[in-house]
Amino acid sequence: MISNTTLKEIAKTLLDSRSVILFPHENPDGDAIGSCVALCKALRNQGIEAWVLIDELLPELIEFLDEPGEGVCGEPCCTMDHQCVRQPDICVFIDCSGDDRILKRAEKFHTGRKSICIDHHLTAESAEDLYYIDSEEAATAQIIYKLLVEMGVEFDRSIANAIYTGICMDTGNFKYSNTTAESHRIVAELMDIGIDHDAIMLQLYSNVDPRETRLESAALANMDLLADGQAAIACVTQELLQECDAKMEHADHLIVVLRDLKGVEIAAVLKEQLSGATKVSFRAKSYADVAEIARLFGGGGHIRASGCTIDDDIETARVQVITAIEEALS
Amino acid sequence: MISNTTLKEIAKTLLDSRSVILFPHENPDGDAIGSCVALCKALRNQGIEAWVLIDELLPELIEFLDEPGEGVCGEPCCTMDHQCVRQPDICVFIDCSGDDRILKRAEKFHTGRKSICIDHHLTAESAEDLYYIDSEEAATAQIIYKLLVEMGVEFDRSIANAIYTGICMDTGNFKYSNTTAESHRIVAELMDIGIDHDAIMLQLYSNVDPRETRLESAALANMDLLADGQAAIACVTQELLQECDAKMEHADHLIVVLRDLKGVEIAAVLKEQLSGATKVSFRAKSYADVAEIARLFGGGGHIRASGCTIDDDIETARVQVITAIEEALS
Repeated sequence: MISNTTLKEIAKTLLDSRSVILFPHENPDGDAIGSCVALCKALRNQGIEAWVLIDELLPELIEFLDEPGEGVCGEPCCTMDHQCVRQPDICVFIDCSGDDRILKRAEKFHTGRKSICIDHHLTAESAEDLYYIDSEEAATAQIIYKLLVEMGVEFDRSIANAIYTGICMDTGNFKYSNTTAESHRIVAELMDIGIDHDAIMLQLYSNVDPRETRLESAALANMDLLADGQAAIACVTQELLQECDAKMEHADHLIVVLRDLKGVEIAAVLKEQLSGATKVSFRAKSYADVAEIARLFGGGGHIRASGCTIDDDIETARVQVITAIEEALS
Repeated sequence: MISNTTLKEIAKTLLDSRSVILFPHENPDGDAIGSCVALCKALRNQGIEAWVLIDELLPELIEFLDEPGEGVCGEPCCTMDHQCVRQPDICVFIDCSGDDRILKRAEKFHTGRKSICIDHHLTAESAEDLYYIDSEEAATAQIIYKLLVEMGVEFDRSIANAIYTGICMDTGNFKYSNTTAESHRIVAELMDIGIDHDAIMLQLYSNVDPRETRLESAALANMDLLADGQAAIACVTQELLQECDAKMEHADHLIVVLRDLKGVEIAAVLKEQLSGATKVSFRAKSYADVAEIARLFGGGGHIRASGCTIDDDIETARVQVITAIEEALS
């Protein structure tokens, strides 16, 4: 926990302002946008001019969070218009903590008379006027929930939906190890208020791109199980992408499928780049150190999730990776 | 809610007894066994002789729920020995409500001096001395949680783990529409007590049989998208099973993968039987009535989940199913 203030103080500061712009990180996810939309709507409900400034269109998956509603919040919260507020009273980092995460919007951020940072990332730092960074929180949306309680505002269904979505996405629907008793308690409160539980679950989890499924299936059909099934490796070639009419991003989830196989401790996915080089992702299930394996190839990362780029064709890279994994497991 | 008593009364009755046998339904799942093990351990902790009588070995997935521990609960709770207690004071249906769900154990059930039924199934009925059936509860484990609170017993980690597992499995890890605010509140309490969250999540969800993955991938590689992607169909032939070294049960999850595709409203999986007939499962995502489709072929089921058997080879059945689905979606 790194903070120079309290949520009570941040609540008071926001409520005393006339205009606020919220800044989620680039490439925003459900937690960033859910947190922003919830706070933006709560501020608007108090008669404060509020906007969420974004750099790019929202990912389709979470567009629903900013669907136009009724009343004072009816207008969308997210905008790409830097002139949404000419000179904002307050600018707030939400789910991020530095100019490097808001890119082209950084200049606008610094036009605020006051700056605030609300984040939950472990490595976050802040030089803002007020900052509240709590890495014990599973999601920034949990902090926003507490902030709205401090503000004494009413939660409507769209605010509850936004916070709920943020918590679901950042906790892997309560599966990840960051999930806390408080995550569950907040969701219970949100369910009492009323959320569109079933619709949100369908939206988040029953919305898989068929191209992803085709690509995964094709790659899995040729996966290798090594070391008595303790390791699983799959390759995604440019040829396979063409066959499946898919893009490389459709292979993002493949590494998790491999890691979740019974008996598998180390998973690796090799991706053939257009340059001819090979990108490799590694995951470990419970004890192996895959950062160490990635470092063998000049890469790095976390102990259970790492990656590297091998400057070789995918077949050559595959042989090297298999040798390294078998070594690590022996 | 169908009951002739309160959990307080059931708690008192159990605490006043000397011996209890708990009866989960045949082919028991995480909720049935989690509920039984939690109650069994709590009773043993009070010095009451308690056993869970089962018909078959526990499924590997949930074996961990009955792992031997320390102290008075050290011995496993589950047994196949009908003489575990010669003449029990109380026999309890857990997560079921009739002899037809406990099969060969029914005779033993009726040797109890008193009988109790604790269940959450919508269609449950009971003629036991005491019964408490609440279909509003997402899991029987939630009822057991409340019962243990009424009993005033201490929750240890293994009891908390068992109840947590039951709730996770019966709510699809809080995704299914049966999930309530109370599900989340109980889990928050269990997390405060202390549960092995990460180990249980790995056990339940990172334990996929590679044969299932291979079979699913092979079937998905040949799936058909119909009606502009509103329907998805996959076939599992005996030949495919041999190619993947898999059993038909490894195709159980396939229908969910199809339903969860973006844009898909109706999913169907056709399974070639050894007899030459074709079993068909249907799922709908949000509005279609697949019970109606199944009835066209003499089958039935729920509005969003149904099935039938077509007395024809899989290729002929496939054509018929496609026609029926296209009709339903037009």
